[in-house]
Parts: sequence; structure tokens; C-alpha cells
Amino acid sequence: MPEVLGPTPPRPLTVEEAATRRRATPTFDSSRGLDSDLLEKILRLATLAPSSTNLQPWRFLVVRDPANRRRLQSCARNQPKVGQASVVVIVLGYHHPDRTHLEPMLALQVESGACTPERAAEIRGRAASGFRDLTDRALWATRSTMLAAATMMLAAESLGVASAPMEGFDEEAVKREFGVPEDHSVCCLVALGYAAVEKPFPGRFDLDEVCYAEHFGRPWTG
Amino acid sequence: MPEVLGPTPPRPLTVEEAATRRRATPTFDSSRGLDSDLLEKILRLATLAPSSTNLQPWRFLVVRDPANRRRLQSCARNQPKVGQASVVVIVLGYHHPDRTHLEPMLALQVESGACTPERAAEIRGRAASGFRDLTDRALWATRSTMLAAATMMLAAESLGVASAPMEGFDEEAVKREFGVPEDHSVCCLVALGYAAVEKPFPGRFDLDEVCYAEHFGRPWTG
Repeated sequence: MPEVLGPTPPRPLTVEEAATRRRATPTFDSSRGLDSDLLEKILRLATLAPSSTNLQPWRFLVVRDPANRRRLQSCARNQPKVGQASVVVIVLGYHHPDRTHLEPMLALQVESGACTPERAAEIRGRAASGFRDLTDRALWATRSTMLAAATMMLAAESLGVASAPMEGFDEEAVKREFGVPEDHSVCCLVALGYAAVEKPFPGRFDLDEVCYAEHFGRPWTG
Repeated sequence: MPEVLGPTPPRPLTVEEAATRRRATPTFDSSRGLDSDLLEKILRLATLAPSSTNLQPWRFLVVRDPANRRRLQSCARNQPKVGQASVVVIVLGYHHPDRTHLEPMLALQVESGACTPERAAEIRGRAASGFRDLTDRALWATRSTMLAAATMMLAAESLGVASAPMEGFDEEAVKREFGVPEDHSVCCLVALGYAAVEKPFPGRFDLDEVCYAEHFGRPWTG
């Protein structure tokens, strides 16, 4: 399915086009900066991802300053793309939005008319019991946060911006250097900018390798 | 930004349109089945998500049979949408693809010319040391798997198919009922089908609530 569509999309790409064209960009063109309005649009689109109870546990720590990117690079196995890319987003997952953001989120919904006060009370009650039983908050926050990270990369690609997700970093070093509190996980880094070279499609396993029908291990036949 | 675009897109949507239009669908129209070719296309697009070392740890257990959906519903707090939606995908994260899928993945890349044998050897070496230090394999697998889940939902929306991500389920019950081995996490369920009613946009926090500039806690100003 993947094919190369040329260097810059003349119009926003469809999801299929963006998913097909996107690469984990190995080398960025450090001479090309990312426009601030375009960056803001990509970040805003990323926040449209769904999340558990709409608590939006993602936090985007946006690193643009070259000296800060070099500091981040030193926490990320010295990967050159951290220094090259115009922007690197430290994608964080916040563990306790139920304690600090449930009421603001419900207020937002009630004010906009998306939800009645009665329904808000229901959500409040369900959240109270759901979060009481939650044992692994880092895992919980990571789930929704990675939905936002994927949305960010597809949105970028759709708008002609290359990306690279990275998980090769020292989480404790990143947190120390950038003042990230203990109750946030560093889920990934996402570099954004323009690719210096075109990368070939590395391939994917066929669906019969990764899909099952009705029961684990039962072959997918379409 | 969000606006309603009408019931069925006349053409595949852009990423912005799909992200804006997508809702966590609360109620599915149980009378409308999802075409098999369309489902296969959505699954295939989901596999284009990036993953750590391209190991593609996601596994999609596709549940379409009504009796199996009822069984799944009983493992998922009896949520009616599990029974209503045409398809529910149990989205799994496999913990050990480095042990079973690294060589097939590298072979695929070398065969297609996307990677030289020398580069494959480099990746093999780096993976060996990277996976040795990996402590939380459920978290590791969940990261890439949620990228695929987000891609699945955006691809669906782009093609006129509604979705609903769910994390309200008993993981052990799902694994037992559907034969999922211990070394796979149930990351989420994704229902796919057609919405029975339109859901209003529940809102998102502004960027100044979830974005920071250069350092944690430093206000984002665009």
C-alpha cells in the first residue's frame, strides 16, 4: 500500500495518505524551522485524541531552543535528530488528572451544553470508583497519551511536517533536566520538522501475522 | 475547532477532519454491519503506525460473531456498545516480539531493499542491548500498541466508520474468555460501526493547560 507522494503535500492529506507517507524520520533538515502557527495547529489537533473519562492526561513540553535541544539530546543517547529537528516535544503522561482536572473537565462539558449536570454527576461517581481501583497509573496515563502522540504525528504528516517518535532516552535524566515532577511519565519524544533525506518504507507484517478472528491464535481470513 | 460534518463523508477525510469529527461513540446502530473489505482496510492502515524497532507489538483480535460480542460484553462491565457495534477489536500488546519477530522483520526490510544487511546487523545489536535493560514490558508494548489504536480510529473515521475506545473491562476475564496468553496485555477495546445518535463534542482543555514551553510548568505562549 505505501507509496511516496512527493516532498510536500499540496493540500492536507487524508488519514490513509498521511499514515502511508509518514516515516520515523531518521535525519532532519536543521536549516528549516517549523512555523509557530503550524506547530500550534498540530498540538491542538493532538489534543483531539480520545482519553479515559476525557481527562486528557497528556502534557506536551515543547523544546525549541537550540541549547535546550542539545540538553535533551544528551539525555537521549545523543541522537542527532534531537538537535537537528526544529521542535522536539517531550510527551508526558500525567498520573492524577482525576484529582485535579475532573471538575474543570466536567464544568467545560456542562457549560458548553455537551453534558447535563445529572450526567456530570454520574461521570463523577463512576470516576471515583474507577480510579480507586487503579493500580498502575503510569500505564493508565500512557495509554491515552500515546493516542495523542499518534494523532500529533498524523496531523503533522497531513500538513507536510515530518516526525520521529523516540523512546531511546534516560527518563530520569529528562525529568531532572526539564523539571518534570515524579507523577508524570515521559512516554516518548516526538521530533517535528522537515526530513533531510527520504526514507524507504521498512515494511509491515501481513495481517495474518497480527490479526486473529474471534479467538487468540485463530487465523484471520478477512 | 470541532464542527459536525454530516453523517457520512463523501470522500476520505483529512487528518484534521477525522480528528475533529471523531467521537467516542456512545451508542451504535446494531442494524448496520461493517463491510469486510472496509474493516480490513482499517486494520491494515492501523498497522502503518510506528513502533519501537518496527517490532509491531500490536495484535488485533477481531470479534464479530454476536455470541462472542455478548461474551466480551460480559467482561466489559456489560457496556451495551460491545453488543451493538458491528465489530469489537480486542487490542493486544505483545511483550516479546524481540524474541520471535526481530529476524522476520529484518528479513522483510533487507528483502525489500529498505535496509542493507550491515544496517540490519546494527539494528540487531542495538535491540539486543536495548531489550536486555527493559524492565516493564507491558508498558513498552502498550506504547506502540496505542499508536496503532489511534491510527485505527482515525482511519475508521476518515472512511465514515464510527469508533469507541474502551478501557472499562476485566483484563483477566477477557484473556480467559478469548485465550489470550499471559505475555500479552489487553490495551483497550475498540468498537467499530455506525453511530446511532450524534454525540456533542465534550471539549478539550486549552493548550495553555496542557502545553509547556522549554521547561515543565513554564507557560505555553505559542
